Amino acid sequence: MSIDTVYQLIEEDLTQVEDWLKSVTRVDFPFQAELLGYCLQSGGKRIRPVLTLLAGKFYEYDRNTIMPMAAAVELMHTATLVHDDAIDHSSVRRGRTTVNALWGEETAVLLGDYLFAKAGEFATDTGNLHVVRLFTQTLQIISSGEINQSYNAFNLAQTHQQYIDRIAAKTASLFTLSTESGAVLSNAPQRSVEVLREYGYNLGIAFQVVDDILDYISSEEEMGKPIGSDLAQGTLTLPAMLVMERYPEDNPVKRLFENRDEQDNVRQAIELVRNSPIVTECYRVASEYASRACQNLNLLPDGASKQTLVEIADYVVARKK
Amino acid sequence: MSIDTVYQLIEEDLTQVEDWLKSVTRVDFPFQAELLGYCLQSGGKRIRPVLTLLAGKFYEYDRNTIMPMAAAVELMHTATLVHDDAIDHSSVRRGRTTVNALWGEETAVLLGDYLFAKAGEFATDTGNLHVVRLFTQTLQIISSGEINQSYNAFNLAQTHQQYIDRIAAKTASLFTLSTESGAVLSNAPQRSVEVLREYGYNLGIAFQVVDDILDYISSEEEMGKPIGSDLAQGTLTLPAMLVMERYPEDNPVKRLFENRDEQDNVRQAIELVRNSPIVTECYRVASEYASRACQNLNLLPDGASKQTLVEIADYVVARKK
Repeated sequence: MSIDTVYQLIEEDLTQVEDWLKSVTRVDFPFQAELLGYCLQSGGKRIRPVLTLLAGKFYEYDRNTIMPMAAAVELMHTATLVHDDAIDHSSVRRGRTTVNALWGEETAVLLGDYLFAKAGEFATDTGNLHVVRLFTQTLQIISSGEINQSYNAFNLAQTHQQYIDRIAAKTASLFTLSTESGAVLSNAPQRSVEVLREYGYNLGIAFQVVDDILDYISSEEEMGKPIGSDLAQGTLTLPAMLVMERYPEDNPVKRLFENRDEQDNVRQAIELVRNSPIVTECYRVASEYASRACQNLNLLPDGASKQTLVEIADYVVARKK
Repeated sequence: MSIDTVYQLIEEDLTQVEDWLKSVTRVDFPFQAELLGYCLQSGGKRIRPVLTLLAGKFYEYDRNTIMPMAAAVELMHTATLVHDDAIDHSSVRRGRTTVNALWGEETAVLLGDYLFAKAGEFATDTGNLHVVRLFTQTLQIISSGEINQSYNAFNLAQTHQQYIDRIAAKTASLFTLSTESGAVLSNAPQRSVEVLREYGYNLGIAFQVVDDILDYISSEEEMGKPIGSDLAQGTLTLPAMLVMERYPEDNPVKRLFENRDEQDNVRQAIELVRNSPIVTECYRVASEYASRACQNLNLLPDGASKQTLVEIADYVVARKK
C-alpha cells in the first residue's frame, strides 16, 4: 500500500476537512480573506488531520466531532508555521513565498494569532472540553519548545535527550494531540487512547528526525526551501550532533557556532553528513521511533485503519520531502 | 467612591486572581519562568478581571469558575500587549522595557503564543464550553482588528465609523468578553447577560477613546511610554481624525501620513490637539459611550456591584493614565 492509497481510503473525509478549512477564509475583510486563502492553500500533506480521522475510526466514529478537530490540528500547525517563518525571517516554504515575505512580519504575527484562535474555536466545535484542554496544553508545549530552541540557538552543549525533548515539544506534541483527540472523540477505551497517544508521539519524533535529516541530504527543489537552514539558524539537530561527536576536534558545526557568519561551514557540514555513516545512523533513530509507534497497535481492533497507521509509519521514514 | 474604593471592595477576589496569574510562572524551564514573571508583573490596572468578577456578582457567584475566567481575560490582554509591542518594535510600556526590547522579537512572539494558550486553558478551567467559545471568538475579533489597523496604517481616508469598528475589535471585544463571561458563569438570565455585554462593549469603546486622547495630552512620565506614538505608527485615532476635519487644507497629520519620516509633524499635531476644542470633543464621545454603558444597568439587581460598575465608567473617562 502506498501513501496515495492511504489518502484514497479517507479521501471523502479529507475533502470534508478541506471544506472546514475553506470556511476559514470566509471573513468580512477582503485583505484578511486573501491572507487566509494564501496560507491554507499551502499544499501540505495534511498528515495531522489524517491522523485524527484514522485514530477516530476504531470505535464510534462521529463526523460532527472528528471533522472540526481534524481541521483544528491542521490550523494550529499552519499557525505555528506562519509564526516560525516570521520569527526566522524565512522567505520560502514548500516552494512558496512566506506570508511574512509577502506582507511583512507584523501581518504574519497577527495572522498566526487569528489562526490559533480559529483553531481553538474548531476544537470547541467538538463540544468536548477534554479535547479543548488538550488543544490548549499542546499549544503551550509547542511554544515552550520553541522558546527553548531559540534560547539554545548556537549552543553546542546539548545532549541527545535535550534534542529529543525539544522535537517532542515542537513536533510530536501536535501529532500526539492529533491521534489522542481522535481516540477521545470516538469514545475509545482508556488503554486504546494511550496506544493511539503513544503512536502519535513516537510517529512525531520519527517525523521530525527525518525532517532534520532531509535538511542535510535533500535538495532545495525537493524541499521547497533552502537546505541547511537549521544549522544556519543555530539549531543543533541530530545530524549536527553526530558531526560534533565524530569529529570533536575541529568541524564545520563547531566553527559555524563559534563564528556565526561563515556560510561556508554550512556547506561543509552538509558534505560531511552526506559522505559519512551519520545519515544511516540518523535513519536508524527515526526507524526505531517509527517501530515504537506501531508496537502496541495490536491492542486496537483490526481493520483498514490499523493497517493504514502502519503504512503511515513506513511512509514517514521513507519520504523524500 | 474612588477607584481605590472599588478595588478595595473586591480586594480578596483580586488577590485570588493574582494567585492564578502567579501560577503561570511555575514552569520547568527557568528562562521561560523569568519571561512569564516579567510580563505578569507589569503593574497594569487589572480592569478586565475586575469586570469579570463584578459581572459575576449579580447572580450565582462561583469562585471556582469566575477566578480562572478573570485570570484568562488578563492573560489574553497581556499576550496581545506582548505581541503588539513586538510588532510595533516598542521599547517601553507602562514605564518598563518591553519583552521584545529585552529578549528580542522572536521570544516575544513565542511568549505571546504561550500566554494565549495558557489563557485558553484557564478559560477551559471554567468547565463552560460557551465561555471557551466566546474566548476563541474574541481573540479572532482582536487579531482581525489588528490586521485591519495594520492594513490601514497611514491611510487618511477613514471614517469615524471605521475608527469605532476598529477600537470595538481591538479593545471593546475583550471588555465585552470580560463582563459577558462573568454573567454567563453566574447563570445570569439572558437579558442580564445582554445588559452586562453592552456595558462591557460601551465601556471598552470609552476606554479606548480616552487612551487615544491621552496619547496626545498626557506626558511620557504619566503614561510610561512615548506620547504621540499612535500617529507615529500611522494609526489614525479620533483626535487625528478631528484635526483632519478641522484643518482640511494643510495640517501635520496629513503631512506626516504623506511624508512618513517627519517626527516634527507628530509634535505639531500634539500641539494642535492640545490647543483646540478637539480634546473636549473627544471627551464628549468617550462620555457618551460611558453613559451608554450604564444606561441599562437598572435592569440588574441592586447592590454594591451595580454601583461599582457606574464608578468604573466614571473612572474610565476621568483617568489620567
